[in-house]
Amino acid sequence: MINRERLHKLQTLAQAEDIAAFVVAPSASLFYLTEFSMGLSERPAFLLVPKQGEVSFLCPAFEAERVRRGTGIERLITYTDEAGPYDALSQALTDWNLGRRIAFEFQACRLLEYDVVAKALGNNIDIVDARPHLAQLRMAKDATEQAHLERAAAAVNVMLDAIQENLKPGVREVELEAAAREALVQHYPDAQVAFISIASGERTAIPHAGTTDRALQAGDLVWADLGARVNGYVSDITRTFATGPLDAELAQAYELVLQANIAACRAARPGVLAEQLDEVAREVIRAGGFGPQFTHRTGHGIGLEVHEEPYIVAGNALPLRPGYAFTIEPGIYLPGKGGIRIEDNVIITETGAKVITSYPRDLRL
Amino acid sequence: MINRERLHKLQTLAQAEDIAAFVVAPSASLFYLTEFSMGLSERPAFLLVPKQGEVSFLCPAFEAERVRRGTGIERLITYTDEAGPYDALSQALTDWNLGRRIAFEFQACRLLEYDVVAKALGNNIDIVDARPHLAQLRMAKDATEQAHLERAAAAVNVMLDAIQENLKPGVREVELEAAAREALVQHYPDAQVAFISIASGERTAIPHAGTTDRALQAGDLVWADLGARVNGYVSDITRTFATGPLDAELAQAYELVLQANIAACRAARPGVLAEQLDEVAREVIRAGGFGPQFTHRTGHGIGLEVHEEPYIVAGNALPLRPGYAFTIEPGIYLPGKGGIRIEDNVIITETGAKVITSYPRDLRL
Repeated sequence: MINRERLHKLQTLAQAEDIAAFVVAPSASLFYLTEFSMGLSERPAFLLVPKQGEVSFLCPAFEAERVRRGTGIERLITYTDEAGPYDALSQALTDWNLGRRIAFEFQACRLLEYDVVAKALGNNIDIVDARPHLAQLRMAKDATEQAHLERAAAAVNVMLDAIQENLKPGVREVELEAAAREALVQHYPDAQVAFISIASGERTAIPHAGTTDRALQAGDLVWADLGARVNGYVSDITRTFATGPLDAELAQAYELVLQANIAACRAARPGVLAEQLDEVAREVIRAGGFGPQFTHRTGHGIGLEVHEEPYIVAGNALPLRPGYAFTIEPGIYLPGKGGIRIEDNVIITETGAKVITSYPRDLRL
Repeated sequence: MINRERLHKLQTLAQAEDIAAFVVAPSASLFYLTEFSMGLSERPAFLLVPKQGEVSFLCPAFEAERVRRGTGIERLITYTDEAGPYDALSQALTDWNLGRRIAFEFQACRLLEYDVVAKALGNNIDIVDARPHLAQLRMAKDATEQAHLERAAAAVNVMLDAIQENLKPGVREVELEAAAREALVQHYPDAQVAFISIASGERTAIPHAGTTDRALQAGDLVWADLGARVNGYVSDITRTFATGPLDAELAQAYELVLQANIAACRAARPGVLAEQLDEVAREVIRAGGFGPQFTHRTGHGIGLEVHEEPYIVAGNALPLRPGYAFTIEPGIYLPGKGGIRIEDNVIITETGAKVITSYPRDLRL
């Protein structure tokens, strides 16, 4: 059902920014505003939030009942498969006089949604990225959202336990993934797997390597990057394991990543800038001689999306605030040899930060 | 790895249509051209196919190795998290002289990808929807693709069997879904669940109702709309069950939907227009007095996407051709009472159509 308080905040933002309307396609932001989930398809559908007055929802006629029950919105703009959406939307916008600046979330809205709105407004349109405004609403998590994030983080522990128990030469990455899935179903029936990525051997040097059917060998590095979802909210946690002692270079890299993680977790507090926190982690790794091998930002926000604001990255002068939830995930990647990442989830409190990942961070052999 | 034959066809199309380049974001079309899968994220990534010359791929620097191994493309345009994509893409397009008409797939490309390309070209850009051109390549399935589709269709049988075996009052929709998932894992380890939607009671009147934890009651209508994925290719099959005899109105509706399905499956052959096939099914239901309750098109293509071209809908004068694969899924929905849909998958042959769904279509009690 539509959340009137969040909607009111968005309309207040629209007025302040002189945005005529927000077009909210099926996405995390739509769920944030309505708790309604819908897939993207070839049939455009979106919530239309004008800067003042009642919202409406464009959808196929045969979806109207589902949208009505899911959102509580009465003003639906519907179209048949035969007719398509253009005429219905044009008709609905006949007396449109709120302005031509229309906000779309660039990373959630397709050209399909843009095109139908632009045509309905006779191409008399200026587009604005809605994302910064939606992020402003979504970044600080309230107590309920934090509880979901904490449970999502706790759920990953049973997945990591299952992986560690099965970790030995000969086991395939896909088998580790299956064990993690089964553990979540068994211990957290209210949670869903958000994603699982397990890499072993030299492929650990590829930060987003996905699970394959490779069998583990003695002495392998193995990392598991896991997310669980609880009531829509996700965790995103990585732990690095090994099937035997590491050589000196990898052992040093592991220790640096661990120290970078610990330093950034300790430095996180209200008022610290996102870029400063990135630098805290980066400096540890740079001082250890592996700066160029830490090839990505230190972290990203988590919430209804696995990646969202705030981004913990150089150049982002955003001050952290209570309720901001994000990852701290330094890594070192040595091409052809192996990579290490230790990723925790934290929430900024009034005075510091709460690390909501409780799984041990020392190397698990 | 990039498919040079398909790429060549796309470049030939680009030359014929005076399209300067195709921008192919992570999507089914990217998989079709490269067999490489990548998720959409806040970091833009896409394949750039100019009308002539070598392709390139924009991606974050830390993803370069994964993209290189997955696609075989050597010309990568990479950027760091700190710098973002604009400068790298602008630099790569410095000597761009192929024209300003750039094709994006409207239903797969976000404003994010559009925005980075538009800025890199100094906003000297006209956008064209790439989808009709990509559909032209993708619609006729070759023998390998058809084999995947047939196996994906066969896999749904074990899911439907599992549902029917568990169908009795007191069982929850989510339990039926779990039984279907388990059956697929057990019998088709090479397949994945593409989607499952199970509805019972009056919610069967909502065509896209999703599975809930509602317990079945005696005399309920229940439909299961299921898809399995094999090597990327999906099936999309619906069967309607009941936990007891139907009343006269629903029994008549079931018979009409069944006859509409059979008539359309029989009418499908090369040269028939998509809109004619829609009308074959619609006329049966209209003649039976339920025309307005058949609230959606008769079908849609299947392939790497659950919904793709050809759309079997009024107004689509596309002639069907050998290799076209699509659903035939007439339905009747009586609000507040119940709905019925019978959905099969067919592939057009040289002389007719092969129905690749083998599960019985009579009402399963």
